[in-house]
Amino acid sequence: MNPAPIPEFMRRAIALATENVRSGAGGPFGAVIVHEGRVIAEGANRVTQENDPTAHAEVRAIRAACRELGVFSLRGCEIYTSCEPCPMCLSAIYWARMDRIWYGNSSADAARVRFDDAFLYREMALPAAERSVPASMLLHDEAWESFQVWLDTPNKILY
Amino acid sequence: MNPAPIPEFMRRAIALATENVRSGAGGPFGAVIVHEGRVIAEGANRVTQENDPTAHAEVRAIRAACRELGVFSLRGCEIYTSCEPCPMCLSAIYWARMDRIWYGNSSADAARVRFDDAFLYREMALPAAERSVPASMLLHDEAWESFQVWLDTPNKILY
Repeated sequence: MNPAPIPEFMRRAIALATENVRSGAGGPFGAVIVHEGRVIAEGANRVTQENDPTAHAEVRAIRAACRELGVFSLRGCEIYTSCEPCPMCLSAIYWARMDRIWYGNSSADAARVRFDDAFLYREMALPAAERSVPASMLLHDEAWESFQVWLDTPNKILY
Repeated sequence: MNPAPIPEFMRRAIALATENVRSGAGGPFGAVIVHEGRVIAEGANRVTQENDPTAHAEVRAIRAACRELGVFSLRGCEIYTSCEPCPMCLSAIYWARMDRIWYGNSSADAARVRFDDAFLYREMALPAAERSVPASMLLHDEAWESFQVWLDTPNKILY
């Protein structure tokens, strides 16, 4: 992997973001995923157009890259995103085992244009009991059974 | 919205989780979304089967619920999930504007069966420079242009 960024990949992510606004397709966010020096997938925000609150640029690019490569791990890949990932997208990048993130706008910039990224980062860092969306445990002993079945299952596919 | 949980909804989420392992479809995670006292969508983990690292139970249930209702906001909905949401799913719940979370297993339980949820929560709470996946800003001035276009666009759909 090349440790230096390739500015043209970021320009492509930014162009996706800008075009996405101009076309009315969604918010000002675009991302590309690079593998071995080549763009293998692109994504732009489609939350409103697809009625999918998870359809952020990075999540869509990750899904597309995994489809392209036929894998569920993007180890060895980098993401160029026009804005610093929100916690959902950052976590998706971790789950996809990606190597590196390059971003254009910051989460603070996103907050300036009234996206909730900075708020979400604050919420994630709070103890669960202090978050604004209440969350409570229910039927813990019964729920553990599904984990016990997982533990007892041989030859499962780990991820 | 009923402030008290309905145990049968959690039992359904747990059943989805357990069945998901037994069938070999994915990890031990299931979720249901409830609107006005009725289950409107279900989801189970399909990361390995669908080659999609974002295909967690909660994300899949949110997508299904939005499709069902034809909306990108699930305000007024609750989620019952067999395990406390990871940061990706928790953020998705915030982006979907959901009202409440009921969970069975905790993130600590998930860590005991070797899922990375607790690690991810620690990473989210770190300053970006201290996280294990490196992230760097690139072409900030050019990236801001996509936000400026957003600011300058009238009649955009906010989310």
